[in-house]
Amino acid sequence: AAHGARKMEDYGRFLALLASTLLVGFVSVILSLVWVFHFREGLSWDGSPGEFNWHPVLIITGFVFVQGIAIIVYRLPWTWKCSKLLMKFIHAGLNTIALILAIVSMVAVFEFHNAKNIPNMYSLHSWIGLTAVIFYSLQLLLGFAVFLLPFAPVHLRVALMPIHVYSGLTIFATVIATSLMGITEKLIFALKSPAYSASPPEATLVNCLGLLLVIFGSLILWMASRPHWKRPPAENAKILRLIAATPEGTQVESTMTNSSNADKSDLRISTEAARKQNINFDEAGQRSTM
Amino acid sequence: AAHGARKMEDYGRFLALLASTLLVGFVSVILSLVWVFHFREGLSWDGSPGEFNWHPVLIITGFVFVQGIAIIVYRLPWTWKCSKLLMKFIHAGLNTIALILAIVSMVAVFEFHNAKNIPNMYSLHSWIGLTAVIFYSLQLLLGFAVFLLPFAPVHLRVALMPIHVYSGLTIFATVIATSLMGITEKLIFALKSPAYSASPPEATLVNCLGLLLVIFGSLILWMASRPHWKRPPAENAKILRLIAATPEGTQVESTMTNSSNADKSDLRISTEAARKQNINFDEAGQRSTM
Repeated sequence: AAHGARKMEDYGRFLALLASTLLVGFVSVILSLVWVFHFREGLSWDGSPGEFNWHPVLIITGFVFVQGIAIIVYRLPWTWKCSKLLMKFIHAGLNTIALILAIVSMVAVFEFHNAKNIPNMYSLHSWIGLTAVIFYSLQLLLGFAVFLLPFAPVHLRVALMPIHVYSGLTIFATVIATSLMGITEKLIFALKSPAYSASPPEATLVNCLGLLLVIFGSLILWMASRPHWKRPPAENAKILRLIAATPEGTQVESTMTNSSNADKSDLRISTEAARKQNINFDEAGQRSTM
Repeated sequence: AAHGARKMEDYGRFLALLASTLLVGFVSVILSLVWVFHFREGLSWDGSPGEFNWHPVLIITGFVFVQGIAIIVYRLPWTWKCSKLLMKFIHAGLNTIALILAIVSMVAVFEFHNAKNIPNMYSLHSWIGLTAVIFYSLQLLLGFAVFLLPFAPVHLRVALMPIHVYSGLTIFATVIATSLMGITEKLIFALKSPAYSASPPEATLVNCLGLLLVIFGSLILWMASRPHWKRPPAENAKILRLIAATPEGTQVESTMTNSSNADKSDLRISTEAARKQNINFDEAGQRSTM
């Protein structure tokens, strides 16, 4: 009962954090729209500043918010009864949407620059941003080929999963860093009288937007990196049910409980270890897609 | 022997990665000096731009390079024979040096701004940078109080360690993002004819510096987040030696091996689990400081 209560408390904590993350992401998207419609030229697709404005709106909506949700989609407890394959399609689908929005937002900037004879690709923002989009595309392609298609052998999936997780989180952090550079550039270029340094309302609003992006990124990274919030491995659930239900299971357990205290703690530890081991395999999508 | 060979190969891979990381960090520091001495006004402490120039140099040297080394100092295999307490002092000492350099670099900017009547704290760079310095100070104070001083109970150390690791890595990533914003600001403000958009040599050099900072950060995060590169737990080594050497240990083992195959795999798993559990405790510095 105490264990169940602790689990419920942990579930409540996850939900509270998820709600905060969604709120911060949602407010960020709203602030980008307020920026563009209230302080700037709105949205259009005609080479004017209104075309440029698609860039911050689509980056914050797609490359930050949707990518963030794609990262934690396996953590949502109510999806754990869905098949792993379905969840992989949702993960890949959300990342594909994010990539498409990022590419459209880049096209908007290039068209605006070309219409206004502004050089392309000179800033650190553009260098790191383009690098992030290229790595993100490679990550998506490799993830599709290795983890979604049924051809890759298990040992390859197991070997590549830590790299997939690391590069996914690193690209996500880099995208947020690039957004902060973009905000800095745009505020310096767009605010002339009063200048950025005079802190007009637009500067304060967009600085707050930048802070919210950092908070959103930090929340996503926290939720993604807590091991106890991972999707439970399907295979392990089966094994545990087997141990609990069958006579052999009961026998194994009673043999264990009949021995010393050291053995009791071994049982606890080995169940935990089985869970961890199973997670490792399950993460690599060993059988769950078949 | 095959296991030993794999271990040596892994050791070689760690050393190659460490050498690359140090090289990238070292080249970053050199590039910041080339920027300041070849393209800008050099270094001074008189309210002139030469005083401002301490800001990028000290941030890249202290807040990026030294902080990065402080993060991976427990991963260096040749320190594993040193006491955990000594390594904690080195970790805390390097982070203290990084904090002092960051504070001095901020004083340089404030004095330069005040001498030139430029407003302080209006940009997103300054908002997030100051927030990072405040969180970094709190992280250092809390780390000192909980993990270095011998007063905190084990359960508190165990509970706080994942938060310490997460916030350390998140602050580090935020510091790099803030550096990229600072580079963007400075290049836009300082380059007038030719402008940043004309890509003069200074712009290309400092863009490359920004890319190197991202690569340095990514390498540090990779090395810090590989579980098999962690410092091996001291307590566990003792326990394993105990099990292998004492008659009780042998007895436990033979009881285990006399039973079914399931039990054998349990032994393997439970040793693994003990290792992991011990790592968790050892990370929290349970007894190793006493």
